[in-house]
Amino acid sequence: MQLGIIGMGKMGLPLALNGRDKGVDVVVFTEKKEKLGQLAREGIAAHGNLESFIRPLTPPRVVWLMIPAGEPVDVMIARLRPLLAAGDIIIDGGNSRYQDSQRRGEELRRDNIHFLDVGTSGGTKGARNGACLMVGGDEAVYARLEPVFTALSGGMGYGRMGEVGAGHFVKMIHNGIEYGMMQAIAEGLEILRHGPLQLKLDQVTEVWRRGSIVSGLLMDMTAAALAREPNLDSLEGIVAASGEANWTVEEAVCRGVAAPVIATALFTRFKSQDREKYAEKSLAAMRREFGGHAVVSRDRE
Amino acid sequence: MQLGIIGMGKMGLPLALNGRDKGVDVVVFTEKKEKLGQLAREGIAAHGNLESFIRPLTPPRVVWLMIPAGEPVDVMIARLRPLLAAGDIIIDGGNSRYQDSQRRGEELRRDNIHFLDVGTSGGTKGARNGACLMVGGDEAVYARLEPVFTALSGGMGYGRMGEVGAGHFVKMIHNGIEYGMMQAIAEGLEILRHGPLQLKLDQVTEVWRRGSIVSGLLMDMTAAALAREPNLDSLEGIVAASGEANWTVEEAVCRGVAAPVIATALFTRFKSQDREKYAEKSLAAMRREFGGHAVVSRDRE
Repeated sequence: MQLGIIGMGKMGLPLALNGRDKGVDVVVFTEKKEKLGQLAREGIAAHGNLESFIRPLTPPRVVWLMIPAGEPVDVMIARLRPLLAAGDIIIDGGNSRYQDSQRRGEELRRDNIHFLDVGTSGGTKGARNGACLMVGGDEAVYARLEPVFTALSGGMGYGRMGEVGAGHFVKMIHNGIEYGMMQAIAEGLEILRHGPLQLKLDQVTEVWRRGSIVSGLLMDMTAAALAREPNLDSLEGIVAASGEANWTVEEAVCRGVAAPVIATALFTRFKSQDREKYAEKSLAAMRREFGGHAVVSRDRE
Repeated sequence: MQLGIIGMGKMGLPLALNGRDKGVDVVVFTEKKEKLGQLAREGIAAHGNLESFIRPLTPPRVVWLMIPAGEPVDVMIARLRPLLAAGDIIIDGGNSRYQDSQRRGEELRRDNIHFLDVGTSGGTKGARNGACLMVGGDEAVYARLEPVFTALSGGMGYGRMGEVGAGHFVKMIHNGIEYGMMQAIAEGLEILRHGPLQLKLDQVTEVWRRGSIVSGLLMDMTAAALAREPNLDSLEGIVAASGEANWTVEEAVCRGVAAPVIATALFTRFKSQDREKYAEKSLAAMRREFGGHAVVSRDRE
């Protein structure tokens, strides 16, 4: 069972090590020259040149992309296409937009190259030990690759969600749900912190993660973070929104489906990035116009 | 290790069976006469009379209340008070409001009766096999009762959150978080159902519950429900809000803490119970006033 993996970032490298440990014949391509030595020491065949990576793969070749979504995936597929042959399989394990995956599947079909889109969840630890894999694509191609999914999932969940695009669609919604769940936990912690009782939030979350209704991987991670640093002093309260939840909300709006909690979780992240606070300035301006309300004016420099 | 339990409802009965299995000497009081036979068959000493329940308990007596929050707890404590002596311990394992627990602890202190408030999570399965217990109360009393908590938690989490009231305060916030997490999952499922792809939601949630970031007890329960009935045809979309999340939002407002996701999850439940839809009628009325907008008028009967 051979698997070519492209991309040695925070998910690609642990996935390669995971595959190797599960008996997959992993071959890697990375443009990060500094990773080549590390991979060699790990006993993984690694190439810094795309042609020499593809050449030793046994047809039908299986190439798993673990690279940033968007343009980089199109660029990599364009580079791979002349090197691959009919019957080869490209798997996109990143967080691509599902419409992009549908288009790529369609385009590759013209060269008889198969395409599977795989939403990968469980974080870097999941990638290393056992990831949750949501797969979209042709049923026969999925069946052929199932031993790879069994190996990489390492006892965790995997399954075919539907045709090409379904893997990334389900992963997109997964991430939207994740945003909402994270925001719910975050709000609870903030009320605990500012409530009337002196509570140790690391102790609270350590109890919650063991058997409560709010237990799960997110609570495990929250408890681990608070165990290391209960006051979170090393962090700024600024949170990125990396795409999938944005698409989830767009999808909800397109379909006329209400998703107020997921949208609120997303908007809370936008607001966390906002230094200007124009909306809040606008509110303060309106209150000032009412007359008699104190506002916080900016010091003149 | 002896434990008197009062209340044989959906949490009390499994908790009694759980304690019995873990070697706790469980004695039960219930006013549900029909439960007495079942308890006897389970080998649990059960009484239908409060005096005959209290009399055989060895001082210092430990009485665990597993009854509905509010008035019933005050009524039961008033009935117990003349039957108990200094040094005895009352534990409230229900979902009482934390301010009530603080008041009850204060009142019982005058008779030198100890009081612990225990937020209990994990559902009926948790109560039966191992519950997550959030305890508030005096440190020495907690230490004395720790073998009981160890037994009932059955390997799940338990811990002292702080003084009397802290157990129910932490449980209240837990339930607020639970509302937000549930709503996030529910919204994701609705987008999946109305999205462009044909997906089997029982398969999706079965994959998600195994190793994904959104895995946890709630996703386990969601997957189990959808495995039995993917279309949920047996249910109406009407959801109760049983108190703790309401108090969480009140607490957030009192403290000036933003909790938009928890509040939205709560308000979504209120809206699910609303048959009149006066707000939506108001919106339709305003649109009609704009002129030219189609509205859905009610058929005259």
